[in-house]
Amino acid sequence: MNILFIMYDQLRFDYLSCAGHPHLHTPNFDRVAHMGVRFSNAYVQSPICGASRMCYYTGRYASSHGAQWNGFPLRVGEQTIGDHLRKLGMDCWLIGKTHMVADADGMARLGLSADSTIGARQAECGFDAWVRDDGLWGEGPDGFYDEKRSPYNEYLKGKGYDSENPWADYANAGIDDEQIASGWMFRNADKPANIREEDSETPWLTSKTIEFIEEHDGPWCAHVSFIKPHWPYIVPAPYHNMYGANHIPQPRRADVERDDPHPVFGAYMENKVASAFQREEVRQKVIPAYMGLIKQCDDQLGRLLDHLENTDRLKDTMIVLTSDHGDYLGDHWLGEKDLFHEQSVKVPMIIYDPRSAADAARGTTCDALVESVDLAATFVEAAGGKVPDHIIEGRSLIPWLHGEVPDWREYAISEYDYSATPQAVKLGLRPRDARLFMVFDGRYKLMHAEGGFRPMLFDLQTDPDEFNDLAKGGKHHPEMDRLYDMLAQWGRRMSQRVTRSEDDIETMRGKSGRRGILPFMYDGSEVPDELTVKYRGTVRQDHVKGDDKGS
Amino acid sequence: MNILFIMYDQLRFDYLSCAGHPHLHTPNFDRVAHMGVRFSNAYVQSPICGASRMCYYTGRYASSHGAQWNGFPLRVGEQTIGDHLRKLGMDCWLIGKTHMVADADGMARLGLSADSTIGARQAECGFDAWVRDDGLWGEGPDGFYDEKRSPYNEYLKGKGYDSENPWADYANAGIDDEQIASGWMFRNADKPANIREEDSETPWLTSKTIEFIEEHDGPWCAHVSFIKPHWPYIVPAPYHNMYGANHIPQPRRADVERDDPHPVFGAYMENKVASAFQREEVRQKVIPAYMGLIKQCDDQLGRLLDHLENTDRLKDTMIVLTSDHGDYLGDHWLGEKDLFHEQSVKVPMIIYDPRSAADAARGTTCDALVESVDLAATFVEAAGGKVPDHIIEGRSLIPWLHGEVPDWREYAISEYDYSATPQAVKLGLRPRDARLFMVFDGRYKLMHAEGGFRPMLFDLQTDPDEFNDLAKGGKHHPEMDRLYDMLAQWGRRMSQRVTRSEDDIETMRGKSGRRGILPFMYDGSEVPDELTVKYRGTVRQDHVKGDDKGS
Repeated sequence: MNILFIMYDQLRFDYLSCAGHPHLHTPNFDRVAHMGVRFSNAYVQSPICGASRMCYYTGRYASSHGAQWNGFPLRVGEQTIGDHLRKLGMDCWLIGKTHMVADADGMARLGLSADSTIGARQAECGFDAWVRDDGLWGEGPDGFYDEKRSPYNEYLKGKGYDSENPWADYANAGIDDEQIASGWMFRNADKPANIREEDSETPWLTSKTIEFIEEHDGPWCAHVSFIKPHWPYIVPAPYHNMYGANHIPQPRRADVERDDPHPVFGAYMENKVASAFQREEVRQKVIPAYMGLIKQCDDQLGRLLDHLENTDRLKDTMIVLTSDHGDYLGDHWLGEKDLFHEQSVKVPMIIYDPRSAADAARGTTCDALVESVDLAATFVEAAGGKVPDHIIEGRSLIPWLHGEVPDWREYAISEYDYSATPQAVKLGLRPRDARLFMVFDGRYKLMHAEGGFRPMLFDLQTDPDEFNDLAKGGKHHPEMDRLYDMLAQWGRRMSQRVTRSEDDIETMRGKSGRRGILPFMYDGSEVPDELTVKYRGTVRQDHVKGDDKGS
Repeated sequence: MNILFIMYDQLRFDYLSCAGHPHLHTPNFDRVAHMGVRFSNAYVQSPICGASRMCYYTGRYASSHGAQWNGFPLRVGEQTIGDHLRKLGMDCWLIGKTHMVADADGMARLGLSADSTIGARQAECGFDAWVRDDGLWGEGPDGFYDEKRSPYNEYLKGKGYDSENPWADYANAGIDDEQIASGWMFRNADKPANIREEDSETPWLTSKTIEFIEEHDGPWCAHVSFIKPHWPYIVPAPYHNMYGANHIPQPRRADVERDDPHPVFGAYMENKVASAFQREEVRQKVIPAYMGLIKQCDDQLGRLLDHLENTDRLKDTMIVLTSDHGDYLGDHWLGEKDLFHEQSVKVPMIIYDPRSAADAARGTTCDALVESVDLAATFVEAAGGKVPDHIIEGRSLIPWLHGEVPDWREYAISEYDYSATPQAVKLGLRPRDARLFMVFDGRYKLMHAEGGFRPMLFDLQTDPDEFNDLAKGGKHHPEMDRLYDMLAQWGRRMSQRVTRSEDDIETMRGKSGRRGILPFMYDGSEVPDELTVKYRGTVRQDHVKGDDKGS
């Protein structure tokens, strides 16, 4: 069996028709949901690109692997799905974005060169890179945001797009009176991107994926990782005006949220992207573009599924559709992601398992509390292995996919390290204090903030919109203690004993006695003779008397 | 300045005259205490050889580095004092024991060969090994406990000791009617070890240390790590009978401890070594030998200090005297270490800083709550560096050594993973549930036990003997909440963000905008022109119309 691990960037959980969107029709996402299981309560372990992805790729929480924000390198030696799957004879390939930053210092410290296979895999977060392109080719006075090569820009140049940075000038810009109308500016979101639709990012990466599949026998896991619908919010015709004012929901926000808000929430509500999304003209421009980008993703998914179907590969390919985090789009007075409201931290999670054991659950929705770290465990089990649960902190979803009801977690955790953001500066926080923790039991959602702040608390049963912070004004709500106990229990988890599995330890027990470690004997009668035989015999030399007898 | 980081194994905090021992006179330990500062409240982060040492050598808690018990390899890539000090131009050498187990799987995964400098240092816990000898050459039907070479055994053979394992047959055995009287058997503890005193372990390692000092210019940190007074409890003449019945204290234990004990404590009280030490004849044999071993350590320390003095090296050598854990010796109905009573988890910590800034504090006792992980921070600061507090979890003791009163911790933490022991089997625990946590605020000591057990709680102010478990019978003591809050706070600590320091993050802040990441603009007027200049200009090709104009 092969695994197609498909990730979209910044795709909200509710912007799919199978998740109930009233206007955005995504028949191909729905098709996979119909073939498999749609998990309706899936949460990422950090609602920001880099950290979320590191959690997916290691199967470990952000504070277990330490790559807690964008640009924080994943420490050398941290094990990834590539490591686990290759041990089981399954290759692990990348097509697209990871946001991985290599631990160059660590690699140098261990003498790993980036051009060895081992070094390259360390630098690529455990993947063999078919295509590595993180999709954001921003450029400013200090240079490119991403200093690696861009296969996508090279493709565009090869197709005749006349620019040093065609990603910026064509794929992510429209035209306004013969001037480049950059997609960085929301004003331009409703313009068609100045590119042939088939050359835009999503079709390009889909073509690379089809090419990969045609050239590789399995078993493989391929991480197909699209940049869209992440900003810049601009999409080529015909998607740019497929949606309009009639399709834009009212923002889900309430005045009460702005009244004595949690200080961290308050700082975010005042930041630049939040201020932008508080303006209705921004939402009116951006949301149709965002929907158009998703529609294009759905059409391209259809192209990929058709290819699998036409080549009879659906029968041996597991398919996962997910996202690294959501997008507020003006809900809660915010833009972007970062915090823990559903719009940000909850993601689509649709999984198709082709095996007959999964027949019973096809087309169902599962509301178990899923964490993104569960995918690593799921892939190991799908590849025929035993989940190394002293390393991978997630749990395999295979039982759910097979219609079983396993023992399951009582709460989901997510974390956010905002130390590198203006909000941390605004709040006057030392970097290590700019950290948030979410504990969600399926009904109550607690956000703990380091740095001496009060928490936030929502009851999603009575307040599904998460407008009423029950911890406002420092109120102590009875459910807080229970959720703080869960957070404390999670804080005591065993996350670093990565060199000894549970089985290893059970095997170790009682062995040292058979190797002469016997520190509890009075006279040796306590143990069988064979254990003490090496400590007996006639003395050969007597050094006490200073008299070295011969033997 | 050089650093002599001297560690004894299993040396109780109170078996020194400067700590108040009424009979054991240790003038050389006292001499260093008089030259420097004696820390009277120093705690190890795991009261067992292997895990304690890994904490010392990384400056990190056991659940941060994961090498939580004897034989658990320290994961490849984990940074050690060797890494930190070499960056500052200070070599880092080993003379003696570390109990380090190399992460062979991890090294293979990263292609590190054990015979490269990098690989050797990984395998030796970051040290360059002048002498590596872990001091326990037990042998049983399954072979040697330690499969590495033994420089000490090689030395003894070279000196004519006739045996395949002279450590067992001579250094750690006496003579009983011409038979080997093994030191593994407590019955033999009062016999003189069958070896010339100058060839026994402590003098041998001291000679190797003096040799090292003579051959190495600084700056260096040398970890001089003795096996004694760890068992086998046997010592050569004249030390074997220097102490006797008059010098053995009553065991510090009470019947109330055995009444409805905490299940983990109860399991330990029933184990073999505890049962042995509950017999007064065992204490009568062992304790004088233990004292003799310490007396020999003190005499040899004197030899080393005299050498430093005679070669005028005291003026540029920092000296640290400490231990990896204690020894119950029958107190609390126990033998060995493992749990968190003072006899086990508290250690000597005597530090001499030769610099004039330390003059003000010479000869003083400091009762600040010290953790063994503080030494790594202390050494980095002593070597002239800034403590990498995103990696090292301890705090530098230099301020205390210089007579200052820095902001300090409110509680000390220790952990114990007993998953590989018979007690975990007896209690029917999964390995990951066999874990204990200590939180000590200087007065109240809480022991939390995973696996669903109640905690233990002591008030050392009203019950300095730690006989009265305030949590017995599941009682909820008001102080528990406060200590559990401390444990929860510690559980949220940032321990894995090892690739980005606080300074790195402060430097990162706000930089992406200057590299073209501008996801919040309506029309570009929000930022200076220089940030958007790359996104402007005349369109060269119009792909919207399908009409590629020339430029």
